Amino acid sequence: MVVMGIDPGVASTGFGVVCVEGGGMSAVDGGVIEAPPGAPIESRLARVHSSLAELLASHDPAALALEDVYFGKNVRSAISVGEARGVVLLAAAQAGVACFGYTPQAVKSAVCGTGAAPKHQVQDMVSLLLDLPGPPRSHHTADALAVAICHAAHSGSAIRDEALRQGASVR
Amino acid sequence: MVVMGIDPGVASTGFGVVCVEGGGMSAVDGGVIEAPPGAPIESRLARVHSSLAELLASHDPAALALEDVYFGKNVRSAISVGEARGVVLLAAAQAGVACFGYTPQAVKSAVCGTGAAPKHQVQDMVSLLLDLPGPPRSHHTADALAVAICHAAHSGSAIRDEALRQGASVR
Repeated sequence: MVVMGIDPGVASTGFGVVCVEGGGMSAVDGGVIEAPPGAPIESRLARVHSSLAELLASHDPAALALEDVYFGKNVRSAISVGEARGVVLLAAAQAGVACFGYTPQAVKSAVCGTGAAPKHQVQDMVSLLLDLPGPPRSHHTADALAVAICHAAHSGSAIRDEALRQGASVR
Repeated sequence: MVVMGIDPGVASTGFGVVCVEGGGMSAVDGGVIEAPPGAPIESRLARVHSSLAELLASHDPAALALEDVYFGKNVRSAISVGEARGVVLLAAAQAGVACFGYTPQAVKSAVCGTGAAPKHQVQDMVSLLLDLPGPPRSHHTADALAVAICHAAHSGSAIRDEALRQGASVR
């Protein structure tokens, strides 16, 4: 199963693609979509949308995961994050990819084992879990990979739960 | 000149199309894009985006105007409004239509002559200025027409200012 995680932002949108096979998990792709600084907001959103549409077409993920944001510095920055989230969700809908949201605590918990883990620990654990040569250069990439790992972990448990319900033996 | 005003929301997005000719202004179109309630957010955003893309193609406006929002009930609702704004701005960029934002005060001021006008006065003045048989049924439509009027008024002054700078006589 391929999962794409996204950390949406108007200036920089992080993406991370994770493949789950057997009991293991590996990173397939990751990076940052940079919107041209100084360009009108609508052009920057168009860049995020078109780059993401290409990534979705090329990786064909089973799901797109992002962090649900319920807090922020202020309403103005929340509107900006919302604008980027809007075009990300739209690109997923247009590609027929289901979207899943996780609280920041759920993401930290899935990656680090505790919802109170500091940011640098998330980055270290992402590189450890995905066997990367080092932590991702951008924290947007790390956050995107983290939410992808979170969805993969939750889907894994859901598959195990379903198998248990059906009386199958789960190793 | 045709101006499209938008009042973005995830449940209901108001639109209003105003035509400015000579010294007069008239309403060309107006209404509400309703997103299917209960559907996943990405499907609702896709509905807003595709309906708006059709409206932009059919009216071919010179500009799209919307209210800048810098306050709100909370960050969660700001994120939702931002998501709708994101797909609205994207649709405009994809149609090659420039976007303009106005503060709620600027809109009220353009329509009612005062930035402190109450909501019902905006609705009444919209129907008066556009010679409608009555106030628009939905306040989303009224708000969308109001921001379109605001942009038309500002562009009108800009055209007058430019003409004055060039030494032309302006009536």
